[in-house]
Amino acid sequence: MKRRRFVRAAGLGVAAPAAVAAPAIAQPAPALRWRAISSFPKSLDTLFGALELFCRRVGELTDGRLTILPFAAGEIVPGLQVLDAVQGGTVEMGQTAAYYYVGKDVTFAFDTAIPFGLNTRQHMAWWLHGGGREAMNEFYKAHGVVGLLFGGTGAQMGGWFRKEIRSVEDLQGLKMRVGGLAGQVLARLGVMPQQIAAAEIYGALEKGTIDAAEWVGPYDDERLGLNRVAPWYYAPGWWEGGAAVTLYIGAKAWTALPPAYRKAVEVACMDVTLWTIARYDHGNPAALRKLVEGGTRLAAFPIPVLEASIAAASQLYDEIAARNPAFARIYASWKSYRREQAQWFRIAEGGFDSFMATQSAQNKL
Amino acid sequence: MKRRRFVRAAGLGVAAPAAVAAPAIAQPAPALRWRAISSFPKSLDTLFGALELFCRRVGELTDGRLTILPFAAGEIVPGLQVLDAVQGGTVEMGQTAAYYYVGKDVTFAFDTAIPFGLNTRQHMAWWLHGGGREAMNEFYKAHGVVGLLFGGTGAQMGGWFRKEIRSVEDLQGLKMRVGGLAGQVLARLGVMPQQIAAAEIYGALEKGTIDAAEWVGPYDDERLGLNRVAPWYYAPGWWEGGAAVTLYIGAKAWTALPPAYRKAVEVACMDVTLWTIARYDHGNPAALRKLVEGGTRLAAFPIPVLEASIAAASQLYDEIAARNPAFARIYASWKSYRREQAQWFRIAEGGFDSFMATQSAQNKL
Repeated sequence: MKRRRFVRAAGLGVAAPAAVAAPAIAQPAPALRWRAISSFPKSLDTLFGALELFCRRVGELTDGRLTILPFAAGEIVPGLQVLDAVQGGTVEMGQTAAYYYVGKDVTFAFDTAIPFGLNTRQHMAWWLHGGGREAMNEFYKAHGVVGLLFGGTGAQMGGWFRKEIRSVEDLQGLKMRVGGLAGQVLARLGVMPQQIAAAEIYGALEKGTIDAAEWVGPYDDERLGLNRVAPWYYAPGWWEGGAAVTLYIGAKAWTALPPAYRKAVEVACMDVTLWTIARYDHGNPAALRKLVEGGTRLAAFPIPVLEASIAAASQLYDEIAARNPAFARIYASWKSYRREQAQWFRIAEGGFDSFMATQSAQNKL
Repeated sequence: MKRRRFVRAAGLGVAAPAAVAAPAIAQPAPALRWRAISSFPKSLDTLFGALELFCRRVGELTDGRLTILPFAAGEIVPGLQVLDAVQGGTVEMGQTAAYYYVGKDVTFAFDTAIPFGLNTRQHMAWWLHGGGREAMNEFYKAHGVVGLLFGGTGAQMGGWFRKEIRSVEDLQGLKMRVGGLAGQVLARLGVMPQQIAAAEIYGALEKGTIDAAEWVGPYDDERLGLNRVAPWYYAPGWWEGGAAVTLYIGAKAWTALPPAYRKAVEVACMDVTLWTIARYDHGNPAALRKLVEGGTRLAAFPIPVLEASIAAASQLYDEIAARNPAFARIYASWKSYRREQAQWFRIAEGGFDSFMATQSAQNKL
């Protein structure tokens, strides 16, 4: 409008064609249209909701010039092929869990969680200030992607069991839906790990094809209805003390992106990270209450089970490190980071949380 | 440049004066210059660093059109007058701890922490998804400000003591630098709370004018050198299980801000929140190790002290609620939120963290 007024004021008396007038804006950043795929279905509304929030946020922060369209698992590629699709340039970016790709290289797991790893806040500290982001992205170079922190679920549950677990012996021969490194650790204790897609867990557990299954936590598990086919619900999910979500971006697409857009993407990731973790923390309590009211038997893994598991995990890590230099490099610094974090967290955070837990157990809150 | 080319192409043959050419840009948002003050000195580099990061980020997200300049405590107004300066319009915004203003109304404390309150993640869940932001901002209307979450310190330490605390009786007559609601709770157990500015804590503790002082946690405390004048370092700081920082913005300035700028401010706050919490979590472990290596005696408050304190706190809240409707309204919903959060957090998060704490205590990590 003002453009026209100027043109008229200059006495031209003609309307400037829009196509010519547009470049008058001082070198605007290009309008781009990207696609972001997800490993998760729309029914996981916290995870897929996080991707939708991200797309909206980037649009707001770039005046709508960087448009990113979200696609759920299966809409463009299957959920477990997100990394491949981003690597290959099928899409520019994808939301996934890095540890889905441990088959390519176990090192991916550090980006999500490894058994007896960092809790959520420790992982964020490692990623943002402890060199985690740099270490993982150095590793990602060979895979043609850039990885950004994209939220997390908090500590997960240990899953649903048809029978009570009283000892390490009770794990012998147990068929459990559990993947990645957790499956490898549990296999050393006699478990027979099974890879089963989310949609088929319910049926497998109902029929008794499997004896146990881990998924996420109360909020997501309750939606799968696993409580209806297995009575025991164990804690904690020691293989995911703080499972993080990752956003992969094709390295070439990332490098070619104008710096202002890169900043918008990075800041939107921080927003989404906080939003996602807080949404799980908000949703889990009510879901847990509903489950317990519906008859779910909440139980804690016996300490000897946890001790045998961490011993098996440490041994496994040492073996992997001996043959995988990328894993070894990150493991060395990550391990000392975990040691220091655990020392500190048991003082103030742990002291506070465990007193509040006792008060809660005594119904005093 | 392209503007001129168009003008030449149109055959005018004159350079358009800059002042006239400028409006050709499609109604750009106005260039604004704001000031953000802080309650914290530059020496608290995580807190003041968060404000600097925020100002930089807003600049990046608005193409430098919303410029915000950060000022440390005392540069424009004293640290504890941030709310007043924002309320009165001296500056547009300020970073502070809401509970500094409990003298105006105790209700402010919910925004930071109240004794035996929410931990950091629970507070974020309450603020972002549990109605906390809405409840506090409803309260803030009468005070002429808008409040945004601006990070936090994590669970704080219980402070430095010249003598060991073995029982509730040991608190009798203890002069302790501790403010707000924590001071009121401790007064019920015989402590004589003292209000002392940060810069004077060291001297007061050294001279024995006071017997104890709480500040933040290892990272900040070590810089004040409190370990050199008091040997005992207690955990947890049950009055700040997850102390949050607040950014106040004058309500009129906020309403007048273009929506795109408001969005940039809000998203930058999320970025800063994550960055700050992670930076404390990153910095505390090394500081704690340094303190312990230097002779600091780390200790946990005896459980009877915690139990007497939470009983006194609950009684205090009931008394306040009986005479303060704003406090009562928020306390009712906040209390049930705390109950539900504590129930859930002791299952997966608590189960995981406490096992890792045990492993840490046994030097197995």
